[in-house]
Amino acid sequence: MNLKEIGEFGLIRRIKPLCFIRKENIIKGIGDDCAVYEIDRKRAALFTTDMLVENIHFLRNKISPFELGYKTMAVNLSDISAMGGKPSDAFLSIAIPDNITVEYIDELYRGMIFACKKYNVNILGGDTTGSKKDLVLNIALTGEIQKNKILYRHNAKIGDKIYINGYLGDSSAGLDIILKNINIDKEIKNYLIKCHNMPDIYIDEGIFLSETGAVNSCIDLSDGISSDLAHICEESSCGALIYEKSLPVSDNLKKFAEIEKKNPIDIVLSGGEDYKLLFTVKKIAQKILRKNILKSLKKTCSVLVKSLRGMTLF
Amino acid sequence: MNLKEIGEFGLIRRIKPLCFIRKENIIKGIGDDCAVYEIDRKRAALFTTDMLVENIHFLRNKISPFELGYKTMAVNLSDISAMGGKPSDAFLSIAIPDNITVEYIDELYRGMIFACKKYNVNILGGDTTGSKKDLVLNIALTGEIQKNKILYRHNAKIGDKIYINGYLGDSSAGLDIILKNINIDKEIKNYLIKCHNMPDIYIDEGIFLSETGAVNSCIDLSDGISSDLAHICEESSCGALIYEKSLPVSDNLKKFAEIEKKNPIDIVLSGGEDYKLLFTVKKIAQKILRKNILKSLKKTCSVLVKSLRGMTLF
Repeated sequence: MNLKEIGEFGLIRRIKPLCFIRKENIIKGIGDDCAVYEIDRKRAALFTTDMLVENIHFLRNKISPFELGYKTMAVNLSDISAMGGKPSDAFLSIAIPDNITVEYIDELYRGMIFACKKYNVNILGGDTTGSKKDLVLNIALTGEIQKNKILYRHNAKIGDKIYINGYLGDSSAGLDIILKNINIDKEIKNYLIKCHNMPDIYIDEGIFLSETGAVNSCIDLSDGISSDLAHICEESSCGALIYEKSLPVSDNLKKFAEIEKKNPIDIVLSGGEDYKLLFTVKKIAQKILRKNILKSLKKTCSVLVKSLRGMTLF
Repeated sequence: MNLKEIGEFGLIRRIKPLCFIRKENIIKGIGDDCAVYEIDRKRAALFTTDMLVENIHFLRNKISPFELGYKTMAVNLSDISAMGGKPSDAFLSIAIPDNITVEYIDELYRGMIFACKKYNVNILGGDTTGSKKDLVLNIALTGEIQKNKILYRHNAKIGDKIYINGYLGDSSAGLDIILKNINIDKEIKNYLIKCHNMPDIYIDEGIFLSETGAVNSCIDLSDGISSDLAHICEESSCGALIYEKSLPVSDNLKKFAEIEKKNPIDIVLSGGEDYKLLFTVKKIAQKILRKNILKSLKKTCSVLVKSLRGMTLF
């Protein structure tokens, strides 16, 4: 049978029941942004891993090694943020083709360490090997959180409101510009390309959301809202209602869509790699949360409210 | 600068000082079989990761998917065994080319789970993605150990005796047979190929060694004794004396070397991927250890003494 017939998630469903051999200490296995296991009575360890493959996730001549290093670390950090956790230590496996120089690898590490320094994360080890053709990067990242603060996908409740902490579709538009060399105002171009190559990550925002006690579920938007919101719905056994007018569209994306003669909403719904946090808030707690968000706006969560929009789970 | 000029270990030396950003809780970073960090006053967590790349580490038509799955897990388990630890949870990242079937992936998982069941290890998550050409597998594996029981590379002392818990060179001969289709007795052929494709792993032996209190240092022989013993020497600031007659050579390797008109010692010294444990024992403790090993032979450590040979660090 061809793998395309069942897809990535079909494959995961197929192998998931076989993989759970020892139950002790395991809080969450396959099926969320991170695996979770108990450290002691209060603390839990988080664990995530993400692989970036040349010619699948990136074109080597379209992203600088610094940006690629940053992004490889960022996509893993994003998974920790989606659980409300604090990242700890990273492990890099890298398969390097012959035509890559020492200077390229230096820049790649500079990009990774730029992201690490921001969040006090070590690169504690890994594996370095050759590759016949494609550059392959895999990061495994650990994190920590209080057991009673973890944000899951599976805990959304009917009546929750859905929030997103920033604009969607910008990364996808950035990729389009990179691939097609679209003629567009330089400032807009730089903004959209940055959204794709060096996405912001929301560790402090994730921790803040987990501390509020008002958030029932959370996911990072890596595949796109259509796909990722469906994960929350599937894991939480509920549906979701999205109002078109509530979807967060940046002015830059509107301009891009105008030039490309596209509907920005299509880009917002299907575009991936924005790495914003989508979270659902207890109906009863929404006023408190809004107040809290506004209150802490000037500290860590300045991005959180920019495009705070309500959608409803039903 | 070309990467070949500095090599894998030159690259590691180059990036190592940059990667250590946060010191709290870290017991050992880059430079051993696993990274080690503190869980609490008594316990430490172990962490390792290994990547297998098609056409670098394996040829897809020369190893069954079951064997490949087993071996990918085994090389990571081996790193945990070298620290004396107990493995806990594995995370698999896999980049899958289009021409791989669902049945192939099923067999690959069957092989991994065969290794996991033996040691009570979960596959708790990972990442599944596409690949333009080569199949790439990365496993990140956690483990646990008492803090005062950890076996490092850096603690060998002058006067220690060096031991290896099995034959060397068999895996390298097996690879030769696979690649060159050498005409040799079927039983010998099967034994040597098994040593390459499905190497035994020594978790119980590693735990036993760490419990004795008599072992100063340990490493798993993945690159070959010349290279791996040099790691112990470098990390421990000492030299090593190897007696040719003490090197553990299997009868099957002797027969293979005869047919191939090679010196078996050359194969033993340079061949990699045997995944035996090389460990150094306190001079004063050697009699006790021997007695202990013999005593527990009938339980977990049946392999340990088969080719127990003495060599000396000086």
